Amino acid sequence: MPKKVDHTKRRESIAKAAFAVIARDGIGAVTLRSVAEQAHTSPQLLTHYIKSREGLLLAAYNHFIAMTLERMIAAEQRYKGVEALRRSLWEGVPMDKKSEDNFRVWLSYSETASQSAPIRMLLNQGYQESNAHFARIIRHAQALGEVPKNIDIEMTAWGATMLVVGLGTHIVGGGEKISVAEKKHFIDHWIERMLSPKKARQS
Amino acid sequence: MPKKVDHTKRRESIAKAAFAVIARDGIGAVTLRSVAEQAHTSPQLLTHYIKSREGLLLAAYNHFIAMTLERMIAAEQRYKGVEALRRSLWEGVPMDKKSEDNFRVWLSYSETASQSAPIRMLLNQGYQESNAHFARIIRHAQALGEVPKNIDIEMTAWGATMLVVGLGTHIVGGGEKISVAEKKHFIDHWIERMLSPKKARQS
Repeated sequence: MPKKVDHTKRRESIAKAAFAVIARDGIGAVTLRSVAEQAHTSPQLLTHYIKSREGLLLAAYNHFIAMTLERMIAAEQRYKGVEALRRSLWEGVPMDKKSEDNFRVWLSYSETASQSAPIRMLLNQGYQESNAHFARIIRHAQALGEVPKNIDIEMTAWGATMLVVGLGTHIVGGGEKISVAEKKHFIDHWIERMLSPKKARQS
Repeated sequence: MPKKVDHTKRRESIAKAAFAVIARDGIGAVTLRSVAEQAHTSPQLLTHYIKSREGLLLAAYNHFIAMTLERMIAAEQRYKGVEALRRSLWEGVPMDKKSEDNFRVWLSYSETASQSAPIRMLLNQGYQESNAHFARIIRHAQALGEVPKNIDIEMTAWGATMLVVGLGTHIVGGGEKISVAEKKHFIDHWIERMLSPKKARQS
């Protein structure tokens, strides 16, 4: 089986190279040639694993960008109720250099969405998964009695996704520098207003 | 004075050409040559009015993207209190093809913010103006007694900017299609939760 492992590793290193090209020069710079160069291989060898420019973009998305959503869902599994919502938002909003790079590359995909149906599909799937993820958390927080019954779950879940997208775009896209503490304060304020959680209500 | 009018018109038509190039092919496609071609002139004549690629990007931003903020501020002047906030959000969030194009081009600028200090400055100024605009509206709504005194003006104003950025990115960047009615419902839900306006409280 060692051969198979090599193939998987090879695809991963190609996806990583495509991601690196986008992070450095933007999505427009992705070609079979530029990614082959970045991966220290030839375009010919590269096409043995991934056949087209679009294939490179999909691979980079699946290997790197989708990880943000995975981390959000991991937070949903590790924490409960309102705390799970807070932790998931912390994972979605870029808090360090690495997650800023991830978000910047995601923003490149968004910017080119109108030009590619497969990318549009990936992005759309991400929005849907994010909304469903937040809806599960809020529904669970309601079941735990942490938030009022009259919360509009669908609107609030969509709002949580919009918070991640808006704040992420602000952070990597030229907004004023904001500290991690300020990001967390913004998130807490949003949770407080949107969900009127029990603990805060008592204070 | 006809000469001077021509100069202004010429700069405008160049800015318009740069905007058209970005809307069609992305910000990476902006060169003195491509914009000259779009404007039916020569690169040499073009540089008589705008000297560099960066100058083209600044001109396109100032002539077209900044218009969204101007429309938001016009709504602030035409309406009062919570209604001014609602109308301003309607202007900020893309509601038709033309404002979608505008937002898409703005997103291109955001995506390249890390590569250009002058563009970063423009974007940053836009964020600051938007936040200040929403803060004025909310403060005024408080003075009118339409919203409670304990609203955190700064956080809510920033949140309004984030709503525009998040929802705009969703709309042009691959999110599921949403109708104008759904966009307005999302905005109303946000206002309701964030500001607890008087009228809704009584109902």
